[in-house]
Amino acid sequence: MAKEQDFVKDIADIDQDFAKWYTDIVKKAELADYTDTKGCIAIRPYGYEIWENIRNYADKLFKENGVKNVYFPMLIPESLLQKEKDHVEGFAPEVAFVTEAGGEKLDERLVIRPTSETMFSVLYSKWLKSWRDLPMVYNQWCSVLRWEKETRPFLRSREFLWQEGHTIHETKEEAMNRTIKMLEIYETIVQDLLAIPVLKGRKTPKEKFAGAEETYTIETLTRDGRALQSGTSHYFGQNFTIPFDVKFQNREGKEEYAYQTSWGISTRLIGAIIMAHGDERGLKLPPKIAPIQVRIIPIAMHKEGVLEKAEELRKMLEKDFRVDLDSREQFSPGYKFNDCELKGIPIRLEIGPRDIENGECILVRRDTAEKVTVKLENLNQEIKNMLEDIHNNMFKLCKDRLDEKTHIAKNLDEFETIINTDQGYIKAMWCGNQECEDKIKELTGAHSRCIPFQEEHVSDTCVCCGKPAKHFVIWGRQY
Amino acid sequence: MAKEQDFVKDIADIDQDFAKWYTDIVKKAELADYTDTKGCIAIRPYGYEIWENIRNYADKLFKENGVKNVYFPMLIPESLLQKEKDHVEGFAPEVAFVTEAGGEKLDERLVIRPTSETMFSVLYSKWLKSWRDLPMVYNQWCSVLRWEKETRPFLRSREFLWQEGHTIHETKEEAMNRTIKMLEIYETIVQDLLAIPVLKGRKTPKEKFAGAEETYTIETLTRDGRALQSGTSHYFGQNFTIPFDVKFQNREGKEEYAYQTSWGISTRLIGAIIMAHGDERGLKLPPKIAPIQVRIIPIAMHKEGVLEKAEELRKMLEKDFRVDLDSREQFSPGYKFNDCELKGIPIRLEIGPRDIENGECILVRRDTAEKVTVKLENLNQEIKNMLEDIHNNMFKLCKDRLDEKTHIAKNLDEFETIINTDQGYIKAMWCGNQECEDKIKELTGAHSRCIPFQEEHVSDTCVCCGKPAKHFVIWGRQY
Repeated sequence: MAKEQDFVKDIADIDQDFAKWYTDIVKKAELADYTDTKGCIAIRPYGYEIWENIRNYADKLFKENGVKNVYFPMLIPESLLQKEKDHVEGFAPEVAFVTEAGGEKLDERLVIRPTSETMFSVLYSKWLKSWRDLPMVYNQWCSVLRWEKETRPFLRSREFLWQEGHTIHETKEEAMNRTIKMLEIYETIVQDLLAIPVLKGRKTPKEKFAGAEETYTIETLTRDGRALQSGTSHYFGQNFTIPFDVKFQNREGKEEYAYQTSWGISTRLIGAIIMAHGDERGLKLPPKIAPIQVRIIPIAMHKEGVLEKAEELRKMLEKDFRVDLDSREQFSPGYKFNDCELKGIPIRLEIGPRDIENGECILVRRDTAEKVTVKLENLNQEIKNMLEDIHNNMFKLCKDRLDEKTHIAKNLDEFETIINTDQGYIKAMWCGNQECEDKIKELTGAHSRCIPFQEEHVSDTCVCCGKPAKHFVIWGRQY
Repeated sequence: MAKEQDFVKDIADIDQDFAKWYTDIVKKAELADYTDTKGCIAIRPYGYEIWENIRNYADKLFKENGVKNVYFPMLIPESLLQKEKDHVEGFAPEVAFVTEAGGEKLDERLVIRPTSETMFSVLYSKWLKSWRDLPMVYNQWCSVLRWEKETRPFLRSREFLWQEGHTIHETKEEAMNRTIKMLEIYETIVQDLLAIPVLKGRKTPKEKFAGAEETYTIETLTRDGRALQSGTSHYFGQNFTIPFDVKFQNREGKEEYAYQTSWGISTRLIGAIIMAHGDERGLKLPPKIAPIQVRIIPIAMHKEGVLEKAEELRKMLEKDFRVDLDSREQFSPGYKFNDCELKGIPIRLEIGPRDIENGECILVRRDTAEKVTVKLENLNQEIKNMLEDIHNNMFKLCKDRLDEKTHIAKNLDEFETIINTDQGYIKAMWCGNQECEDKIKELTGAHSRCIPFQEEHVSDTCVCCGKPAKHFVIWGRQY
């Protein structure tokens, strides 16, 4: 029989080696595993179900907001990718080429999509005729490939799952509204579903997407105080529609190029969940996306009636919750408790002979380890309330950390001291020159995260050069 | 203003040129379009929603039957593909290779998955330890790539969407049961959801999947009498688990290789729908997967109150049905009727000033063109019944055709005469030798479709060589 401590002892200390702790959790909670294809992971059932829960929720929100799903080819002729100069420069170092197929060398190399602005643009140009055809608000759920040098499961995989929305519009204003609308939807997904507070704003020119006029971002903060870009929404203006000839007859009967956006979230969100909520006991899953919300663990399960009662509870609860029963014979309850914590299951339900006699059971919260004894007749309502409370508590914990780890810096000395002691976000003014952004990066390892929608005024001068400040920027080291 | 006939006149005559009619429908009903990537299509919103409806239904059935979803890498190192001899021989001519990535030539070529037996096997070998870990019943929804020489939208695209299930089991019997169970689920999907009757059976050795011990298939029949392989389920025995070392400690404490299956359906089913149900007016969608089940077309829509009433009906109906309202100003009702038929929408709802006065509307069935006047207070129930009736009638139409087009042949002369006059299925006995199968193919263009589970005895001798018959086989020309 396995020892009760087996799970925990094999996980790196979260405060000593967060990076190792992270990959330990990914593997031992069976979210994903490495494969023979370097830099690419296999997402296992437990990890994939988290993604399905995120995807189903997001897809519903998208559809309520007029988004239509499509599927376009994963292979893009190289010449298409090259039509927008900044875009090809941004992605060229990271692409993978198909050069042989069907037993022959290809005349033109094909790129496995790193993103699909080019494919969408060329198809939009084929379909768009009149202002009456607009807007086209399309999205695809698919995988993309970017040949990263350093990879980390979920956070930076060569192949990853995502959704990419691509839209074209009649006016600049409508396109910009869509860009912001999608960012707000992403905020809802991350805050209301994943229980992680987000920072929301606009990227500096240096940090924006290759080919975009503006990139908007939501950023989350990890337990160890690093920023994680968790969703982006781009406004392209006519940067793609001109070279790709995406034009329409406008209401005045004149030809006009459409205005374009794109936006995406990915399986990186699973990384965000692990890094925002996890603790020394393992994963801690937000109830709304947890594949298992309640796990029933029978105590003294060979005693008469225990397993039957546990199964009866499972059947009753599965109408309202995602629930399972751990009836594995080869493990002790203690081992099962550890496993349940490692996997981040929000509620553990213990039921043994005495509980059955008393018509009750024990609920143990993953987030606070709090134990409560509950009458079986109140069980559904108690679990419902507890799941809600767990969500709120998990959000609050992250929000408190975010507040604690957000500091103001007025000069480079302050900036360096803060980032080296506490990581986190730094609020500081910026003159608008990329040189200062580069210098900050070089000295501190911090990138500009975003210019928030509501800019604050924390000093008059740039934190780096001391010249008059133009923007309020939030900075941080990143994953 | 566009002419009412605009749509119909651009579609090839279904009886004169079925192949051209098919691609016309695909494009003009906006299911899909060609792209700059040769042999790969773009699935447009209307086509993708059909796929989503199939996928959601299938995924639910799968999960009820113990299937868990995963996502594994699309790139497979060439050396992995080569571990099973028949498998690599079967797929080698059709694979695409990634040879350069991240600015460098790769040491080992990577194959874009044509199917994932190899990737699943190598990962199963990593995770499988004991009989307690079995079965593993995993599935992924993804795209695969096969470099076909001749392509046709949905039926044979280089890249296509599908699900591939891969399972490993403790015993041969359990694996075989899973193989058959999945075939039955496919039968349910195609018959109950798509309203297409299927032929079900086992492939001959010549026609089975590369590397399989047995391949089971469901076959559908197109309007022009050709067979379409619409779903397959394979039993592998230990063909992959031995070379991939997928072994476990069995209940006796000894090492044993697992028993494996795989099974898949794809967007080819959309092709099956078009080819089974379509007619001279366009697409005809089975109600259960139609993205729009009811389209409301207002008559004299600028008359006071018409558009408001139409919108009111839309809102009322959308609780129970997938419904939309065609309020486009630039088109006449006649044009809209044609568009509605072209897109295969099961029910057209017409409402004009007089109908409103009388508290009624007109329902027009796509399948029979039958018109009925319906009181608005009975509308929901009438539509519900009509959709059910449309499904049943569509199934019956296909079943009648299937019966009409199934013939018995006792010798090659009969075989050739039948196939050249009526196409369809031919029931004939076979000696079991591949030479006869090859000869039939050469002379008639017909392949063996399957050996049905319930074999009939239509003669004593092989339809080709006249030697004693071993099997009852159904034959047909294929897409």
